Amino acid sequence: MATPNKLRIIPLGGLGEVGKNMTAIEYGRNVLIIDAGVMFPEHDMLGVDLVIPDYTTYLKDKKDWVRGIVVTHGHEDHIGGLPYLLAEIQAPIYATRLTAGLIELKLSKHQMASQASLNIVAAGDRKSLGGLFDVEFFHVCHSIPDAVGLAIRTPSGLIVHTGDFKFDYTPAWGEPPDFGALARLGHEGVLVLMSDSTNADNPGFTPSEKTVDEGLNKVFREAKGRVILATFGSLISRVQQIIHAAARHNRVVAIDGRSLEESVQRAQDLGYLDVPPGVLVELPALKGRPDHQIAIIATGSQGEPSAALGRMAVGRHKQITIKPGDTVVMSSRVIPGNEQVVGRAINNLFKRGARVIYDRGSNVHVSGHASQEELKLLLNLVKPKYFIPVHGELRHLHSHAELARQQGIPAENIFVLENGAVMEFDEKGARFIERIPGGYVFVDGSGVGDIGPQVLRDREILSQDGFVLAVVRLNGKSGEVVGRPQIITRGFVYVKENMDLIERAEEQVINALRRNGTDPQTAIRKSLSDLLYSETQRQPMIMPVVIDN
Amino acid sequence: MATPNKLRIIPLGGLGEVGKNMTAIEYGRNVLIIDAGVMFPEHDMLGVDLVIPDYTTYLKDKKDWVRGIVVTHGHEDHIGGLPYLLAEIQAPIYATRLTAGLIELKLSKHQMASQASLNIVAAGDRKSLGGLFDVEFFHVCHSIPDAVGLAIRTPSGLIVHTGDFKFDYTPAWGEPPDFGALARLGHEGVLVLMSDSTNADNPGFTPSEKTVDEGLNKVFREAKGRVILATFGSLISRVQQIIHAAARHNRVVAIDGRSLEESVQRAQDLGYLDVPPGVLVELPALKGRPDHQIAIIATGSQGEPSAALGRMAVGRHKQITIKPGDTVVMSSRVIPGNEQVVGRAINNLFKRGARVIYDRGSNVHVSGHASQEELKLLLNLVKPKYFIPVHGELRHLHSHAELARQQGIPAENIFVLENGAVMEFDEKGARFIERIPGGYVFVDGSGVGDIGPQVLRDREILSQDGFVLAVVRLNGKSGEVVGRPQIITRGFVYVKENMDLIERAEEQVINALRRNGTDPQTAIRKSLSDLLYSETQRQPMIMPVVIDN
Repeated sequence: MATPNKLRIIPLGGLGEVGKNMTAIEYGRNVLIIDAGVMFPEHDMLGVDLVIPDYTTYLKDKKDWVRGIVVTHGHEDHIGGLPYLLAEIQAPIYATRLTAGLIELKLSKHQMASQASLNIVAAGDRKSLGGLFDVEFFHVCHSIPDAVGLAIRTPSGLIVHTGDFKFDYTPAWGEPPDFGALARLGHEGVLVLMSDSTNADNPGFTPSEKTVDEGLNKVFREAKGRVILATFGSLISRVQQIIHAAARHNRVVAIDGRSLEESVQRAQDLGYLDVPPGVLVELPALKGRPDHQIAIIATGSQGEPSAALGRMAVGRHKQITIKPGDTVVMSSRVIPGNEQVVGRAINNLFKRGARVIYDRGSNVHVSGHASQEELKLLLNLVKPKYFIPVHGELRHLHSHAELARQQGIPAENIFVLENGAVMEFDEKGARFIERIPGGYVFVDGSGVGDIGPQVLRDREILSQDGFVLAVVRLNGKSGEVVGRPQIITRGFVYVKENMDLIERAEEQVINALRRNGTDPQTAIRKSLSDLLYSETQRQPMIMPVVIDN
Repeated sequence: MATPNKLRIIPLGGLGEVGKNMTAIEYGRNVLIIDAGVMFPEHDMLGVDLVIPDYTTYLKDKKDWVRGIVVTHGHEDHIGGLPYLLAEIQAPIYATRLTAGLIELKLSKHQMASQASLNIVAAGDRKSLGGLFDVEFFHVCHSIPDAVGLAIRTPSGLIVHTGDFKFDYTPAWGEPPDFGALARLGHEGVLVLMSDSTNADNPGFTPSEKTVDEGLNKVFREAKGRVILATFGSLISRVQQIIHAAARHNRVVAIDGRSLEESVQRAQDLGYLDVPPGVLVELPALKGRPDHQIAIIATGSQGEPSAALGRMAVGRHKQITIKPGDTVVMSSRVIPGNEQVVGRAINNLFKRGARVIYDRGSNVHVSGHASQEELKLLLNLVKPKYFIPVHGELRHLHSHAELARQQGIPAENIFVLENGAVMEFDEKGARFIERIPGGYVFVDGSGVGDIGPQVLRDREILSQDGFVLAVVRLNGKSGEVVGRPQIITRGFVYVKENMDLIERAEEQVINALRRNGTDPQTAIRKSLSDLLYSETQRQPMIMPVVIDN
């Protein structure tokens, strides 16, 4: 339903995090979309590969109203959903040069690069989208170059959306934040501020990227052998720092891992990586070179067993064998939930003789998101009438809301929302209208949204106790069991050592069918689950297969 | 095999953590066991309830040699394996009074309390075990009262084992650590020190339990409504602090959660909890009492959905409905791997209007394990000849080993071991002998060790993509398919929306059997997995059920 002459803001995507992957701005029959990212599934989303925002439900009757998709920066959780979104709607994309390059890379993997309308903008530009939204892009600092915030002028007033940001006075690449632009916007009068809450429960300032330079220098200075650094492919700023530090210490750098290679190549092609001549080499070119002249940037910072570092940790990497003298540096944060696998990889690297640098004290990683003092500074510069904390879980949004109250924004002008919450703004004020489905959709293999709660529940049961199949043949006329039932299990018990239990299960099925021939499925299910629970305290999925003979 | 006149030390149990749950000390035909704990499974140990040390393999031909089981303190990861161990061997247990009380509670749940020989000791006691091992118990501080370290005199020399400890000058219960005893042992001459490495990568000192008093006081002072505190049942010292803080602020305390109630009751019965009269009440007695006079200690600090706090978070708790004004305090550490579920519970509590206090800055939890400066002090007091860091993952042991080197212990006298590593000590020195199976055993339901890698691998496949069952009847003589194959799936796709795929799968099976009638199982498996992968990019477990008609 269109809303004439009223501004609406709807955070749409993020797994627990509000408005992280997607936000919609509406005015009448005009929709502006900010970002289209993916999230990685949580532990209990069994077998799910990716999670994307449920834009389908939202856009159902609004597909023709989308005036543009504005992307704040080139990280997966902001661009990864574009191939799925563009499969459903046609709308021009607006992004800065590096962001556009990474989007193009992503779309080309889905064979979609040619059909997208990708418009390159620069910080400072203003673009009119559909004649209604006027979007100004302003420079912010984050852990990837070319990140922008958005100043969106609408008929109802000015929205400022920070994107992901921190106030870094000495960034690894490019200029410090554009405080001037923020102050100017504040002076112009901001109706709504939407600001990054990722670190809103973190006191103080987030350290500058420059502090990582010092950490890396120390590592390179002390390392006697090879230095292997694990980081995200998308942390282009970190890759830059590593290349500089390695070059300073007369080491060449090889990139190990396809996703890293691709984004490094793209960033370099577009001029966003400063690589001294001869420093970047191919992995095979390391052969014969002395260890103290070698640095390797590898994928696998989250402990993924199939990534480069994961294979090194268990001795399954074809080119690189970890040995005493190697230094391994974990130069990225551990995504919550990955602590166990990352810890295991670190232990395995130690076991193979490497020195592993992974803790906070070593300054080999800093966050790309603003902490409390920076968030307060932003609120003071922008001076919004209304405040919507975004990009964070509810607990972070509540912390951020508390900061805003401390800065003098009236509590009734602060809105802690959930995904799908529709906020409306007009001359009378601001109000929560309704909550539309603003959840997420699972991508599993090539299927988008074809698995739901029932399939996940089945996977959960199967993952806990496996299944037991009872194949029974019944005489079509007499209803009597023909032959012996066949009991087949997977993921339940080790069968060879439990033949006795399996035999008793067969007996149980025969007896149950003798007592209750009218509903053999239920009889088998009930009798087997009773027996197996009492014998093993387990509850496998029981599948009766009844065949009429 | 017995080893006459030689001392052997074998760390035996712990999931990634070395010697955490169990350690064996051997001399000839004499075995002393230190602790018998359980661990909680990691994420990829699907359906596993508990993990216990693989003592069975170690004790196979040594069951009659065990002179005693010495338990350092009453936490699950040190006592939880006793019921399983005592099912295999008969040996007297030695523990302090509170530890013994908690062991008794544990054994009685397994109907084993009467058959165990439980001997109560006190810090300062010396006991001769089997005439060979002379064990002195010395007082240490940890997050549970009555924790001890061990000084074990053997014919080859003195072993000092710290158990879990920190150097707390102002503990929540009892005396500061017995520095005098440690110095005396150091003076006597220590052959081997085995010391807690849990926090060996943490610089500085671990804060005293007293700092939590301040944090809790602040919470109680500021809270307008009810205060609900989540902690472990076994953190008896924390329960004590909460009761004191609540009483100071004129609140009664109710315990919510069976495991908590039981251990609190036991600690109180034994005189290890100081409860002012009238402060502890039953949950139903809270009815009608004003909110600002109420405190509740609840289970569920790890986000467990079925524990008290988990049920409150999703609105499924029968007696307690979270409402604005409530303050929830997470007063325990988050076990690595539980961050996601704990975060989700916190978000849900915020959503229901509670203020949730969960971060480091609020001083509502401190670790019970020594940090680097404490570990250095211990090394200086005990001055061991040989050093074996224990109770930690490999990365912590390596940090601890580095500290020991800095304190002047020669690198060749420091042994970073893995579970099952056999170290031998005699007049000639110390040496690594061999590695025996020192892994772990899974407990699933009532089954101990009856699931192994194959069952877990099947559960993994099932958890990712479910299964597809193809039931086919073949004519016994002609080998032709009778009727139509039946395709049944669970955890694979949402069937109602994929009828077309299921029908194609049926066709595929018929065609495959026409082409290859000699090995119908393989034909079905191969053809179905090809079709399903190309259509969905998923790899469910495929189960052909072929019935001869």
